[in-house]
Amino acid sequence: MADSAAGAPVLRVALAQLNTRVSDIEGNLKMALAAHRRAAEAGADLVVYTEMTIPGYPAKDLLLEKPFVRRNVEALGRFAKAAAEGPAALIGFAEPHEGPGTRLYNAAAFCAGGEVRQVYRKWLLPTYDVFDEDRYFDEGEEVCIVNHLGWRLGITVCEDAWNDEHYFPHQRYRRNPIREAAGADAEAVVNLSASPFAMSKAKGREDVLAASAGRHGVPFLMTNLCGANDDVVFDGRSFAADGAGTVRGRAAAFDEDMLMVELRREGGSITVSSTEAPSPTGMEELRRALVLGIRDYVEKCGFAEVLIGLSGGIDSALVAALAVEALGPGRVRGVAMPSRYSSEHSRTDAYALAKALGIHCDTIPIEEMFARVMEELGPHLPGAGGVTEENAQSRLRGLTLMALSNATGAMVLATGNKSELSVGYATLYGDMCGGLAAIGDVPKLVVYELSHYINKSAGREVIPKSTLTKPPSAELRPDQKDSDSLPPYEILDPIVRAYVEEGLDAEEITARGFEGETVERILRLIRKNEYKRRQTPPTIKVTNRAFGYGWRMPIARGDW
Amino acid sequence: MADSAAGAPVLRVALAQLNTRVSDIEGNLKMALAAHRRAAEAGADLVVYTEMTIPGYPAKDLLLEKPFVRRNVEALGRFAKAAAEGPAALIGFAEPHEGPGTRLYNAAAFCAGGEVRQVYRKWLLPTYDVFDEDRYFDEGEEVCIVNHLGWRLGITVCEDAWNDEHYFPHQRYRRNPIREAAGADAEAVVNLSASPFAMSKAKGREDVLAASAGRHGVPFLMTNLCGANDDVVFDGRSFAADGAGTVRGRAAAFDEDMLMVELRREGGSITVSSTEAPSPTGMEELRRALVLGIRDYVEKCGFAEVLIGLSGGIDSALVAALAVEALGPGRVRGVAMPSRYSSEHSRTDAYALAKALGIHCDTIPIEEMFARVMEELGPHLPGAGGVTEENAQSRLRGLTLMALSNATGAMVLATGNKSELSVGYATLYGDMCGGLAAIGDVPKLVVYELSHYINKSAGREVIPKSTLTKPPSAELRPDQKDSDSLPPYEILDPIVRAYVEEGLDAEEITARGFEGETVERILRLIRKNEYKRRQTPPTIKVTNRAFGYGWRMPIARGDW
Repeated sequence: MADSAAGAPVLRVALAQLNTRVSDIEGNLKMALAAHRRAAEAGADLVVYTEMTIPGYPAKDLLLEKPFVRRNVEALGRFAKAAAEGPAALIGFAEPHEGPGTRLYNAAAFCAGGEVRQVYRKWLLPTYDVFDEDRYFDEGEEVCIVNHLGWRLGITVCEDAWNDEHYFPHQRYRRNPIREAAGADAEAVVNLSASPFAMSKAKGREDVLAASAGRHGVPFLMTNLCGANDDVVFDGRSFAADGAGTVRGRAAAFDEDMLMVELRREGGSITVSSTEAPSPTGMEELRRALVLGIRDYVEKCGFAEVLIGLSGGIDSALVAALAVEALGPGRVRGVAMPSRYSSEHSRTDAYALAKALGIHCDTIPIEEMFARVMEELGPHLPGAGGVTEENAQSRLRGLTLMALSNATGAMVLATGNKSELSVGYATLYGDMCGGLAAIGDVPKLVVYELSHYINKSAGREVIPKSTLTKPPSAELRPDQKDSDSLPPYEILDPIVRAYVEEGLDAEEITARGFEGETVERILRLIRKNEYKRRQTPPTIKVTNRAFGYGWRMPIARGDW
Repeated sequence: MADSAAGAPVLRVALAQLNTRVSDIEGNLKMALAAHRRAAEAGADLVVYTEMTIPGYPAKDLLLEKPFVRRNVEALGRFAKAAAEGPAALIGFAEPHEGPGTRLYNAAAFCAGGEVRQVYRKWLLPTYDVFDEDRYFDEGEEVCIVNHLGWRLGITVCEDAWNDEHYFPHQRYRRNPIREAAGADAEAVVNLSASPFAMSKAKGREDVLAASAGRHGVPFLMTNLCGANDDVVFDGRSFAADGAGTVRGRAAAFDEDMLMVELRREGGSITVSSTEAPSPTGMEELRRALVLGIRDYVEKCGFAEVLIGLSGGIDSALVAALAVEALGPGRVRGVAMPSRYSSEHSRTDAYALAKALGIHCDTIPIEEMFARVMEELGPHLPGAGGVTEENAQSRLRGLTLMALSNATGAMVLATGNKSELSVGYATLYGDMCGGLAAIGDVPKLVVYELSHYINKSAGREVIPKSTLTKPPSAELRPDQKDSDSLPPYEILDPIVRAYVEEGLDAEEITARGFEGETVERILRLIRKNEYKRRQTPPTIKVTNRAFGYGWRMPIARGDW
């Protein structure tokens, strides 16, 4: 600690919580430099960016493309030069090397005085759920202490902070980089993160990381990515905790921000001061995550508009409400596609919704098309029962939406929820059509809860009351109800959650008080419908386990 | 080497090349025990099974399910007991542990005298392409030498054999288990594998592994999985090489087999003798891989029949021919769905094909349906150009096939080839419909080559000559040709291959003599169509890089 005592009494750190875009190296560089200027104006001594700032996170198999990696290295050089004046910076990039392994590190560069002065290489590489870091990166092994203005800062990247021996009953890794940085006399630990959103995770994230800071007696500063890339939403909420484990500052949730954190030597210890943005919870948190997920997918893919099939039901109503919040009413078009089985109230509800949201709504009845299709197909479908006809209706709606999409360039938003996707209560190439499954990770009961919340917080009936109160139905045959085919959602949802999100088995789920037979039936349905889920569009992940990238199940399989 | 000199002069090893099924623990156990009995009858001293014999490979996220892992351990115990008499066995399973990490090893158990005597834990865990082993397994670290009848056998699992310092210019791993086993005085190295098929890979596999055996002066015996699980085909061809690096025995390709290998001490060295099944190459190899891929997906998913839309074009003709070989003509149904744009010869060709294959072929014209659909949709599609109508036709065909599938329980085989999938020359929810993309990893030029080969080896026109000679067309508008929208396949295919399979960049591809602009255009099309590929069914992998599980690209992305 001898050096540091000679340093400046105060270190001002700017946590640059940016919404980087995967593979947009030039855009990310520009964004980082703009933040650097803002940080300089605010008097920062150091700017800390998010994990993989330059290539974006997760860049996936683009990291296997050599020119992509070369360009990211070259951009780092340009960044260091352009940021020569003003604060130093810790910025994330992919560092190539020639040793054995994948030949890449997930790295953070310390840039000062126009050059890259030090590089930290991430030790702990998450390879579970949506993470595939062992596919791309080799493990770093060395502690990296940056000495900046006489302050000794230990550098870490995201997962490095998540192997606390006291907090987690089971260690995923053998080393704890926070402990080792503290052991190397770091006065504060800095962390560049891309930590994804999941409902109710933010509090736990602050708790575990702050507690770890407290345990090692070092302030902890984390900059987290903010924005969505494909199916994964990053919620920001960068934060700073002091060496006693108390949170002293927090950046905005679901929005870009720059959090100024002041470290000050007082007596023998270091105080941490900053500002604390509110951290939304519950339905407000979920709403904002989904809105960000929709907006970023649409914007980052470059679509002007989205299309949503409005059935009068709750799923499409919720998706429309979220899309309007994400993009504005002018960029959302509803399409009502009634058939002979559409109830009068469904049509009314769809129009009432469109009116309440201020969006355009086309009506394209599928009745005539359906009649003609069944006339043509009927003679070839000797055994055709209800499901064939039901699916054909759903697929004609899909075809209609996709024709509009082809003609207008608008992207279709799929409206299925997680409960349906779990048990396959959805039509492949029908209602599963679309570029993004906006609420595909939201269980049906939460769809209701969120819809009520949206109405409540708007102070008016955005989603029509009758949509909220009628029994759920696919309306593909007379008087159909979801409950004809499925257990009530009050039973289905907690069973799906226990299996998919908590990883419990049939026995453990039954022990929670469900009927063994119902549990077995639902688990069977989940397994049987893997083939449908394999062909879904990206699904915005909001729970700790979503179908999609982080759910990798065989299709052809036995039952043990 | 003192012990071993005391052992039996001859060791008879049976390489049990089985077609295990993922997650069918009971079935795999039964299969392993039946093989054990056959090996006993053949006088074997040791049976070597394939990697992950009991749970099947790749079991993917089922390995995260505790009861699945428990059952696999329990099944291993039952295997050991049931195989108490007769030869010892090396059998693959997932071994749980309580240390830090994933809590599982990819393991091989040495069973003898009714119990598990030793366990080897795989060191090198492939985490690239279709492999995700770091997601599931921790690295083993110890050499395992089994002493059986006085023979010292070094045990390894699949990837363990693939880090030869001399053969590969770049090491993916730090250790070489073959070298270390040889260094621990193994007299032979045994390897339990699940090494997937790729065109022309088998020869290389034998070469690298036999050369490694030669380098370390130890015989090498590998049992490889045979069969397909979802998108990955395992081609068998288990083999044995002697300590001079000469292949002395080989099991069947694409079929279950049991290879008897005799190790004999003669003078100071060990001779290896066995039998050598032929190893097909070129189009014969590809044909057998695709047939196995189709058959196993259909059988392991439990379908009685498949449906194929027959356009008169070459892709659907090839898929139908392969499906008939895989399943027999009684289990394959063709469906011709002509429209106003279908040429007369297309219809004739589809029927000629069905006749040559002996399959039933329905005709369901889409003309009337299409006219009605466009009548209904037209007023809502102000900017509707050709593509909207083209896609609508394709989607009506998809809807028709799926209606037949719903009514009959037959699975639809998608017929798109790799060239189309690369550049997005296919209709999502249209011709991309199906449970399995049978030739989705076969480039168009190879589609032709394989079709010619099939005719030639049948000695008759299975695939009609006119299908083989007419210019390729989607027939979705008058006089349409693929070459209206795409560069000739002679240009497209090598560029796609260079980018997707060889990982070259635009500059490197252009340096091969292609026009820079054409290369850039094709690479742009490949990137732009990621969203379509995300929604394709599993695609049988036959090259060293297929779209699907081993191709993980972001959709929302920048151009650097």
